[in-house]
Amino acid sequence: MAFRTSLDMEDDCLNMSPLGLEAQDKLGTVCIFGTGDFGRSLGLRLLQAGYLVVYGSRNPENSSLLPKGAKVLSHKEAAEYSQVIFLAVHREHYDFLSDISNQVEGKVLVDISNNLKKNQYSESNAEYLSKLMPNANVVKGFNTVSAWALQSGNLDGSRQVSVCGNDYKSKRIVMEIAQHLGLIALDYGSLRAANELESYPLQLFPLWRLPLCIATCLTAAFFCYCVIRDVVYAYATEGKDVSFRILISLANQVFPVVSLIMLALCYLPGVIAAFLQLYNGTKYKRFPEWLDKWMLCRKQLGLVALGFAFLHVLYSLIIPVRYYVRHKQNSYLAKQIKNNETIIFQKFYAWRNDSYLSAGILGFGFYLLLGITSLPSVSNAVNWREFRFVQSKLGYVTLLLCTLHTFLYGWDMFCHAHNYRWFLPPTYMFSLIVPCIVLILKVILVIPCVDTAVMRIRQGFERHAEKTPYAKKASIRGTLAL
Amino acid sequence: MAFRTSLDMEDDCLNMSPLGLEAQDKLGTVCIFGTGDFGRSLGLRLLQAGYLVVYGSRNPENSSLLPKGAKVLSHKEAAEYSQVIFLAVHREHYDFLSDISNQVEGKVLVDISNNLKKNQYSESNAEYLSKLMPNANVVKGFNTVSAWALQSGNLDGSRQVSVCGNDYKSKRIVMEIAQHLGLIALDYGSLRAANELESYPLQLFPLWRLPLCIATCLTAAFFCYCVIRDVVYAYATEGKDVSFRILISLANQVFPVVSLIMLALCYLPGVIAAFLQLYNGTKYKRFPEWLDKWMLCRKQLGLVALGFAFLHVLYSLIIPVRYYVRHKQNSYLAKQIKNNETIIFQKFYAWRNDSYLSAGILGFGFYLLLGITSLPSVSNAVNWREFRFVQSKLGYVTLLLCTLHTFLYGWDMFCHAHNYRWFLPPTYMFSLIVPCIVLILKVILVIPCVDTAVMRIRQGFERHAEKTPYAKKASIRGTLAL
Amino acid sequence: MAFRTSLDMEDDCLNMSPLGLEAQDKLGTVCIFGTGDFGRSLGLRLLQAGYLVVYGSRNPENSSLLPKGAKVLSHKEAAEYSQVIFLAVHREHYDFLSDISNQVEGKVLVDISNNLKKNQYSESNAEYLSKLMPNANVVKGFNTVSAWALQSGNLDGSRQVSVCGNDYKSKRIVMEIAQHLGLIALDYGSLRAANELESYPLQLFPLWRLPLCIATCLTAAFFCYCVIRDVVYAYATEGKDVSFRILISLANQVFPVVSLIMLALCYLPGVIAAFLQLYNGTKYKRFPEWLDKWMLCRKQLGLVALGFAFLHVLYSLIIPVRYYVRHKQNSYLAKQIKNNETIIFQKFYAWRNDSYLSAGILGFGFYLLLGITSLPSVSNAVNWREFRFVQSKLGYVTLLLCTLHTFLYGWDMFCHAHNYRWFLPPTYMFSLIVPCIVLILKVILVIPCVDTAVMRIRQGFERHAEKTPYAKKASIRGTLAL
Repeated sequence: MAFRTSLDMEDDCLNMSPLGLEAQDKLGTVCIFGTGDFGRSLGLRLLQAGYLVVYGSRNPENSSLLPKGAKVLSHKEAAEYSQVIFLAVHREHYDFLSDISNQVEGKVLVDISNNLKKNQYSESNAEYLSKLMPNANVVKGFNTVSAWALQSGNLDGSRQVSVCGNDYKSKRIVMEIAQHLGLIALDYGSLRAANELESYPLQLFPLWRLPLCIATCLTAAFFCYCVIRDVVYAYATEGKDVSFRILISLANQVFPVVSLIMLALCYLPGVIAAFLQLYNGTKYKRFPEWLDKWMLCRKQLGLVALGFAFLHVLYSLIIPVRYYVRHKQNSYLAKQIKNNETIIFQKFYAWRNDSYLSAGILGFGFYLLLGITSLPSVSNAVNWREFRFVQSKLGYVTLLLCTLHTFLYGWDMFCHAHNYRWFLPPTYMFSLIVPCIVLILKVILVIPCVDTAVMRIRQGFERHAEKTPYAKKASIRGTLAL
Repeated sequence: MAFRTSLDMEDDCLNMSPLGLEAQDKLGTVCIFGTGDFGRSLGLRLLQAGYLVVYGSRNPENSSLLPKGAKVLSHKEAAEYSQVIFLAVHREHYDFLSDISNQVEGKVLVDISNNLKKNQYSESNAEYLSKLMPNANVVKGFNTVSAWALQSGNLDGSRQVSVCGNDYKSKRIVMEIAQHLGLIALDYGSLRAANELESYPLQLFPLWRLPLCIATCLTAAFFCYCVIRDVVYAYATEGKDVSFRILISLANQVFPVVSLIMLALCYLPGVIAAFLQLYNGTKYKRFPEWLDKWMLCRKQLGLVALGFAFLHVLYSLIIPVRYYVRHKQNSYLAKQIKNNETIIFQKFYAWRNDSYLSAGILGFGFYLLLGITSLPSVSNAVNWREFRFVQSKLGYVTLLLCTLHTFLYGWDMFCHAHNYRWFLPPTYMFSLIVPCIVLILKVILVIPCVDTAVMRIRQGFERHAEKTPYAKKASIRGTLAL
Repeated sequence: MAFRTSLDMEDDCLNMSPLGLEAQDKLGTVCIFGTGDFGRSLGLRLLQAGYLVVYGSRNPENSSLLPKGAKVLSHKEAAEYSQVIFLAVHREHYDFLSDISNQVEGKVLVDISNNLKKNQYSESNAEYLSKLMPNANVVKGFNTVSAWALQSGNLDGSRQVSVCGNDYKSKRIVMEIAQHLGLIALDYGSLRAANELESYPLQLFPLWRLPLCIATCLTAAFFCYCVIRDVVYAYATEGKDVSFRILISLANQVFPVVSLIMLALCYLPGVIAAFLQLYNGTKYKRFPEWLDKWMLCRKQLGLVALGFAFLHVLYSLIIPVRYYVRHKQNSYLAKQIKNNETIIFQKFYAWRNDSYLSAGILGFGFYLLLGITSLPSVSNAVNWREFRFVQSKLGYVTLLLCTLHTFLYGWDMFCHAHNYRWFLPPTYMFSLIVPCIVLILKVILVIPCVDTAVMRIRQGFERHAEKTPYAKKASIRGTLAL
């Protein structure tokens, strides 16, 4: 690949168009400041796409490991070669740029830097750079792509490159380069958005925090409750040490409870929102902030709930393998045989047992289906109506089946005094409160007259019509009709 | 963000190019009619991408909830600001447009409307709009994107924007706007395609209907059969009520049968197609329509089958937890102990039992693998050859293992008269018919001489060569060689 | 759709721009040589996107099955219609092109051919074509898209079209066509890359080979070992035939061992790399090739390991269903009852049993989580930091839990002589070697001082500072500061 001389570059701004989309013989030259991981990966990728690449380095002689075909020059020389300069250095080293402010005048300076922590600086790197080099057109971008993804060509990862900047022309040039590299460029607006772009790579599952926090608190609370009700109670009243039950028996009481509560919490904000809309008589009033937040993490709530349900299934399936269970059954059988008791088959108990297991299995099946449809690639493949059908209709079926499973499990347990040890009700009862509330509220919403009212509101109807555009429109159209 | 005066807009058509891809200082102004959910979300997104946004509203004073930075004007005024007008109102309200037909002359009118039901109108909304406003360039598009996806920026969903229209230039402008918003624009051709685009958001799992219907029918049929053969038979001949078996024992007989039949139905059209091609001697003859339809929903057939297999696995794994099963085993053991019988270990039975379980587990493992590889994101990551390897080769291994599992389960059951209650054979036998047919046909197709014939046909060979281009080509090339 | 006359086409090169992105009334005409599957599908797609399509055929009269709206002409005539010619014929038939070398002069010739086997020809098809037609601009592309995907419009599959070629302008034109079809065009550089593009559709899970090979070898080796230690030993010493244990009991010993070893192998290269970097004192020295290869297939190693873990879970869960197990338990119980032994409950054993099951279940839960996050669509939705958190942090938690599960399973088995049949230790012990090495090395790396050293190296620090740019930079900056 022949290298163009600097003469080719001494053109006016119009000749920047090699980077534009007009069909030309060659893509232009791109300059990269910084020979670190990202600089090298980006250079390699640019070379592959047909760009000429020139590196600006503090010591141009040291060009080991740089992609073949790229030239290495001093910062000053390199800057003269290209209209577009990628700045692959840390913010702390931006100061060297002050020496080449003439060379970058009017050029596109792409800030691809990331910070090590959130809120490390009061101002985003790109805005800082923009102040430092007021005569250059600073564009923020490419910082969300990893060097690894660029290098391995495995761009399946986050193919999306978000770009922001104050100069539209410069932004377009950078977006076009991204497109040439097989990336999807997304315009994020002015440089004020740089802060958001810079904080993206630093975030760690922000939407999962609340659900995981809820799950942890619920698990801890119910675990303590179970320990008191089972282990401490047995020790205090009968002096028996049943602490070995903690690991599986108690865990398998806590997990399903947490799972069911969280599944219900997943559908609770939806019904609350519907009632709020009914109360407000319009959908154009914002929800309170806590409800907005809650609604945004419903998917994560559901997936955490699914995780607990999955553990519950596994813990239940290994029951017959457990030493404790086998021992109990064997002892019971041995006692019966010794006492010559006949083992009577109770049909009713078989029904009850089978129906509770069936509801559980079917509920878990639907649960899994919900989980699978929340995989990004699956939810992308369905349209909005299909997505809502699965997540709403099937979601309520799941909730219903799981609640039924719990009811059938408990059966008449609640009306036997001996289950209220120290007046503490069995754990499973707590898991029924939220699901029942959700289901009752949902049943109210499904009543035809209520349903119609909600539907009308969701289609834009507003009850207090005299104050709303809908009414005005009517009057205006009335006037026009005259 | 400064708002451009209407003077800036009084340019000729060429100046529409701010929306084009030539690098310019500013993106242009986009006008949105309608301040509903979609209008607001779209406006927000456009503003973020750097467009100027002006809303056309029936009462411009009511601009609450509109994104900051957007201006609200009357329809007439707003239309004058921009070359591109997004029409975010329902079809029923299109009539107000007649008043501003002068303002929209030659402009791009983007119909983003959706209907509430399929076939609500005889003509697509966009075509209707096109007749209403013959001097505007109507483009259909953006209707497949949800307001929610636009607003939340969570465009992972359906990032694809299908666009159709009769004017190529207008279509390009809309596609470029889509690209600027980080969407993938797809040209769907002329406005006649609008109907298809409008019906897309209304469809509800069209490809899943047939498989789900087959599954429901099979399940219902086999369930009735099982109830008669098990429950009714026991009641009629011995007066025993074994209805408690319905929930799990019978379900666990029906589910594997349905699953295996549907898995086989997944591979049956493939072998039928191969035999049809062999019979026709060419691959260029269309398959009958039922076969085409069948082949299109193979993936869905397979996934429904997997769902049933999954239920079968869960139902089988909880067997030892069931009260009925434990009771039966305990009674049996107690009886044996009481009668002082020695429990003899039959090696042969252990082999048989283990081999049938092994085949089942391995079969289910491969089954799951097939399911995972049909996830869109996984099937995208493999090339065509790899996809066919998994779905065809591994698919047949799965079918073979599952059929083997059923055979081993049945073993010599078919030759014991007492299994034919009321002359009804055990349920599992029915599940073997289709898989055996598929496997036998596949074995025939794998025979080298047949395989070669099919391969040649699939590579374009046609048996009746005298009528085909392949032969003509030969003669032409012969001529050329002279 | 009206068909443009050849006169429209007799423009100079500039008029090729209908294919460019400038807004124009019509998209241009595209010529396709070859009326096979791919040619037809491509033509249909092009027509849908608004292109005019003309087919070049050996016998233009035979135009059955071609998409409606396309014209069919002889190769020579067709070539005159368009600046872009898609060559949808096999390499063996390229020779007909020599007759129309005048017609294709300066035009874009898109080679979309694929071979049947790898390395079928010494030279890529595109390069061969380029030599054959030196006056045409050959571009390789579209060969990775399947006719099926084009035809069904189901472009969810591999939407990516990789394009390479020596003439930049021609490449851009082809990439723009791809974009018009809703595909993502990716520039792969010069025609030398054609070989790579042509071999892509022929590859069959290249990254899965090594992991599958390791898995097969390990499984075979451990299976033999188990057969000797269990079956052969029992036969040789006691004359008992326990061969029925092979199918499930032995498999369930081998699978977890293979799974754990492979999970550890997944994390071993990471720690080796860290130690290598520590030793080298820089991250800029390339790793040995075997380590690079190993690191590239870590994901596949992990997924194969997960598959084995999944089988282990299923094999373990069906334990109580097995005839052999039930028989053993029943015999044991019957013997105890007969001998009037009391069955004593050992709390310690319950603890041990439950804790080993718990560790296993939790380990498998995390294992599954790791598997789900390696689904392409899930790993795309997280940023780099989140991905590393899951794959590294959660990965080590999984490894720790699974190793713990194995330790608790074995407990004091290693110190009982009778477990060393023929001096062969129990199989599970082998599975602990690699995980323990990985965990110990990881613990060393986590020690603060070592961790800091690794972090500094990974951020670009180099120990032998006097020879490195980092040091030079310091001196340069020192100079600049003067």
